[in-house]
Amino acid sequence: MDPNPGGNETFIFPADFLRNFSTEVFVHFGVSRADAAQAADVLAKSDLRGIDSHGVARLHTYFEMLELGRINPMPQIKIIREKASVATVDGDNGLGLVVGPKANEIAMEKAEQHGSGWVSVCNTNHFGIAGYYPLKALERDLIGWAMTNSTKLVAPLWGAERMLGTNPIAIAFPGYREPPIVIDMATSAVAYGKIEIALREKAPVPKGWIVDKDGRDATDPQRLIDGGAQLPLGSDREMGGHKGYGLASMVDILCGVLSGANWGPFAPPFALRQEIPTRSVGKGIGHFFGAMQIDGFIDKDEFKKQIDEWIKVFRNTKPAPGTNGPLIPGDPEREAEAIRSKEGIPLQKPVVNDLLDISKKTGIAFDVK
Amino acid sequence: MDPNPGGNETFIFPADFLRNFSTEVFVHFGVSRADAAQAADVLAKSDLRGIDSHGVARLHTYFEMLELGRINPMPQIKIIREKASVATVDGDNGLGLVVGPKANEIAMEKAEQHGSGWVSVCNTNHFGIAGYYPLKALERDLIGWAMTNSTKLVAPLWGAERMLGTNPIAIAFPGYREPPIVIDMATSAVAYGKIEIALREKAPVPKGWIVDKDGRDATDPQRLIDGGAQLPLGSDREMGGHKGYGLASMVDILCGVLSGANWGPFAPPFALRQEIPTRSVGKGIGHFFGAMQIDGFIDKDEFKKQIDEWIKVFRNTKPAPGTNGPLIPGDPEREAEAIRSKEGIPLQKPVVNDLLDISKKTGIAFDVK
Repeated sequence: MDPNPGGNETFIFPADFLRNFSTEVFVHFGVSRADAAQAADVLAKSDLRGIDSHGVARLHTYFEMLELGRINPMPQIKIIREKASVATVDGDNGLGLVVGPKANEIAMEKAEQHGSGWVSVCNTNHFGIAGYYPLKALERDLIGWAMTNSTKLVAPLWGAERMLGTNPIAIAFPGYREPPIVIDMATSAVAYGKIEIALREKAPVPKGWIVDKDGRDATDPQRLIDGGAQLPLGSDREMGGHKGYGLASMVDILCGVLSGANWGPFAPPFALRQEIPTRSVGKGIGHFFGAMQIDGFIDKDEFKKQIDEWIKVFRNTKPAPGTNGPLIPGDPEREAEAIRSKEGIPLQKPVVNDLLDISKKTGIAFDVK
Repeated sequence: MDPNPGGNETFIFPADFLRNFSTEVFVHFGVSRADAAQAADVLAKSDLRGIDSHGVARLHTYFEMLELGRINPMPQIKIIREKASVATVDGDNGLGLVVGPKANEIAMEKAEQHGSGWVSVCNTNHFGIAGYYPLKALERDLIGWAMTNSTKLVAPLWGAERMLGTNPIAIAFPGYREPPIVIDMATSAVAYGKIEIALREKAPVPKGWIVDKDGRDATDPQRLIDGGAQLPLGSDREMGGHKGYGLASMVDILCGVLSGANWGPFAPPFALRQEIPTRSVGKGIGHFFGAMQIDGFIDKDEFKKQIDEWIKVFRNTKPAPGTNGPLIPGDPEREAEAIRSKEGIPLQKPVVNDLLDISKKTGIAFDVK
């Protein structure tokens, strides 16, 4: 993890300080203290795990959306349809950071009762890092899944325009003595944050990350901003771009179509300055959560001991030249969390300025004692 | 679809003729007529859908495995653990082509009763195309999922040896008037069959498909045969190879670890001439099936009409230069099926020779009237 991408000055803050500040900001807009703490926890977890783009760096956007009344601070989150192991939840246009954890909780309760629980969510907003939700499932010894659709940014294979979000998939499996395996991946070739870094550095990006507004391969990141699109995982036909497109479609349908949310190019934007879709086909964006009780399939400890063994075997893979060998999914984020929970969260100057701006507008103090 | 890859002579057979021949071959080894017809149906579906590598071209391998008693023709397929919406099935070392459909049936029944059903399977063998199973779910208006682990062939990102199978994921969603969306993809960068074609043609493969026995990038397909490995979807770090590795790991754990089957490099080989793993960590290979009842989430017809709309919107995507625009997942296979169900299945000479060899050894006639 490079704490200083783009050569900007960074400042270090304790995670709890940022968590408390975020909580007060949400409370300021009428979010209940419990919900505000929950929302702040999702942001804090993202910062701790080194996913800077999804943490407190996004607080200013939530702030703007709440200030303009675009997000409901006091949603009535409701199950609108249900069978034993499945449900659809209407998030009443609440913060995804509040709706997501509640819907995930329903999936986990169903798993504990019926072996598995699957919850599709409509009328919600961006929910932070997808990995947050399976991490909660791990606390209850469940296998957890999470997906969300999001604002259009990615072209389907052979398309020349944005039609899908970066639509992440996360899933986690608990170990016995080893740490868990945590998979959390966008279905695009690369995270948008990496293209942002190239933009700041005025550096080219590799072929296969983006196309320009006419669908031609591009390496100048500005082409993405000027009406271009990201490419799906696999990038082109030869390297499996149809697979990344297929996965993004799966996420879009499970989150959007199955719940009655907007799907594909109609997912509403997260931020104020993004283009508003010309058409609405549902309510808000959509999420999809799953939880499975291990004991429904196999003895829980037996499973967890095999996961330990799986991890050991994969760590012992013969390394490719110039590498230290394969990582286990979740390693980089766990290592970031170990460091940052001790040493604090590095924030870049523009992010600190955003937080100071919120402080000024709300009167909530932002100073580390 | 190129019916003539590698320039080999091809012969056309009606699908039903091949289906009947396969059925008789399975019956010859003591498989019940119902199970034999089921197994033959999986192979026939693969041939009809243009996935030549997984159809009757594999019958000779099943034949050898049955002849040597490596596969149990009369398995006692049993649920060994269960909760309302989940179960683990022991396939008693039966044909995957028989165990798979039975386990999938259990998942579908659970979905109809409890909203969803999830079945992990151990002690089984290769189950044909993953897409077969969600297609069965579509017949009952369910969303269907299928995964399987398989013999090691793929290196994890930054690994220099085979540790995972090509571990496919399939999922399908029904349309109302439009045909269904059917996603069926290996989690490797490319299907092994494409490398086989390059081998026959003595042509290079693109960088990113394979590495040699030392983990170095290779373009000579012979390097794969000589102890190399395929690469996961995304290929390298820059293009998202950790994501393909993560997906392959997810499939391996859901199919192998969760069911008590062998996982990772210990998955037993499908064919006789493949290396036998040095260690066993479970029983056979593993599958994972899922089914979800749409009505548990949303009105079924409303969902299917939105799927129609999704398909129309994605078909209208602005095309990338030099293309006709995005396909809908499942298009190529459905088009192949429309043609081949009328015109027959093209088989290459070596496949026909294999079938003639089976005919000679079993006494089952192989001649088209």
